[in-house]
Amino acid sequence: MPETPLILICNDDSVDAPGLRNLIEAVAGLGHIVAVAPAKPQSGKSSAITVDKPLRIDRRPDIGEAEVYAVTGTPVDCVKLAMHTVLSGRKVSALLSGINHGSNAGNCVIYSGTMGAAFEACMLGIPAIGFSLLHHSWKADFSQCKPFVRSITAAVIARGLPKGICLNVNIPARCVPKGIKIVRAGEGYWTEEYVDYTDPQGRPFYLLTGRYIDTNPESDQTDSYWLDRDYVTVVPVRPDPTAADKLEEIREILADR
Amino acid sequence: MPETPLILICNDDSVDAPGLRNLIEAVAGLGHIVAVAPAKPQSGKSSAITVDKPLRIDRRPDIGEAEVYAVTGTPVDCVKLAMHTVLSGRKVSALLSGINHGSNAGNCVIYSGTMGAAFEACMLGIPAIGFSLLHHSWKADFSQCKPFVRSITAAVIARGLPKGICLNVNIPARCVPKGIKIVRAGEGYWTEEYVDYTDPQGRPFYLLTGRYIDTNPESDQTDSYWLDRDYVTVVPVRPDPTAADKLEEIREILADR
Repeated sequence: MPETPLILICNDDSVDAPGLRNLIEAVAGLGHIVAVAPAKPQSGKSSAITVDKPLRIDRRPDIGEAEVYAVTGTPVDCVKLAMHTVLSGRKVSALLSGINHGSNAGNCVIYSGTMGAAFEACMLGIPAIGFSLLHHSWKADFSQCKPFVRSITAAVIARGLPKGICLNVNIPARCVPKGIKIVRAGEGYWTEEYVDYTDPQGRPFYLLTGRYIDTNPESDQTDSYWLDRDYVTVVPVRPDPTAADKLEEIREILADR
Repeated sequence: MPETPLILICNDDSVDAPGLRNLIEAVAGLGHIVAVAPAKPQSGKSSAITVDKPLRIDRRPDIGEAEVYAVTGTPVDCVKLAMHTVLSGRKVSALLSGINHGSNAGNCVIYSGTMGAAFEACMLGIPAIGFSLLHHSWKADFSQCKPFVRSITAAVIARGLPKGICLNVNIPARCVPKGIKIVRAGEGYWTEEYVDYTDPQGRPFYLLTGRYIDTNPESDQTDSYWLDRDYVTVVPVRPDPTAADKLEEIREILADR
């Protein structure tokens, strides 16, 4: 008889986020679930690691059948410390991260703590998926996205993923998704990124905001395009950023150096 | 007459790091230099952004001919806030990040704040290079690496880089480098990552350490291989993590979902 799959769940919105509970509910029964999530919100933490401060991991009340732990660090810290402590020596069948409260489509993937956890697991050889719902509210309705989360997870546990590849899954918030599109990340950048303030002493300070500009909105090959049309999008992503196809071009640029 | 190139310099070791001063010295005369670096060390911050706290930017004493500013945030915050404030509306010819105190070869690139700044500039269309010296000490000798830093920078300012590509440059510490190799990132992972402690109240805590395992040490196509043999390595890297070559394979894995 095959062993029960062990599923590690993480996120970046913290152990208290409704998205974590909804992810646990969405995959209930697919395996034994251990959730190791940040004690405090860690949005925008990318693949950051804590290099200079002590980390703690503490048991929290179970959520459904899932064991739950909180780590005083980033999403990547959660994955690393889970493997060092509660999951030490155990084979993990899948790492699921999320469900994030908000989009990780387009170039948001690079800033995403949700995807930081997925990249980390992927580099450890664990099939990994980040899930994000395009709705920031903690009162967001996750009910329509659960069947998609469950079926994608089941497929990945059953069939695995190519070596060095994990998945960035985004889910539209507006209505029942029409289906799944496997595509590339949308191209774009952020503009009007800060609001300027002046403190009571007359000194300036800045708070991040910004507006995302899709530089190729007509392409039907991107996550941004299909999310706008109410499809779930799956982007295969690679933690190794090497641009192997550009080695020759760079050799020419640096030729006489 | 061509305009004087504008060079933005950042790092993750802080505005006070010797590596920043050495980078400014290495490229002196190649353009007008503005350095915008974190007020405090930001090692391991990857592409993290500050989403929920006010940021400040303050002028510091010039270093050589360079204008210097300190930002109370991450390396990516430095690039974004530099573009919003002191460089607003100006064309930047190159972003240089470093010189990092320590290696960013192999899979270290994903955790690197040095490379976080380079990725950010790259996504804004600015030719970007991260430089790292394989020596952690603030007393490290940068003199041998300066000619390499200068010649690579000059080539990139003169010829640009392919769209969506930036460079991860690592420099051996031991002696005069033998030359430059343009290669891919070494494959590997970290093991034995934490030291376990117990606090006076009997509760466990953990501090990050770890040992890097090169999983393909024989390949002569990687940065790790050539750094061991005293070459400077240049890895072309792409902020967009889409694995475009794996779309079909993922479609098959998720086919009946």
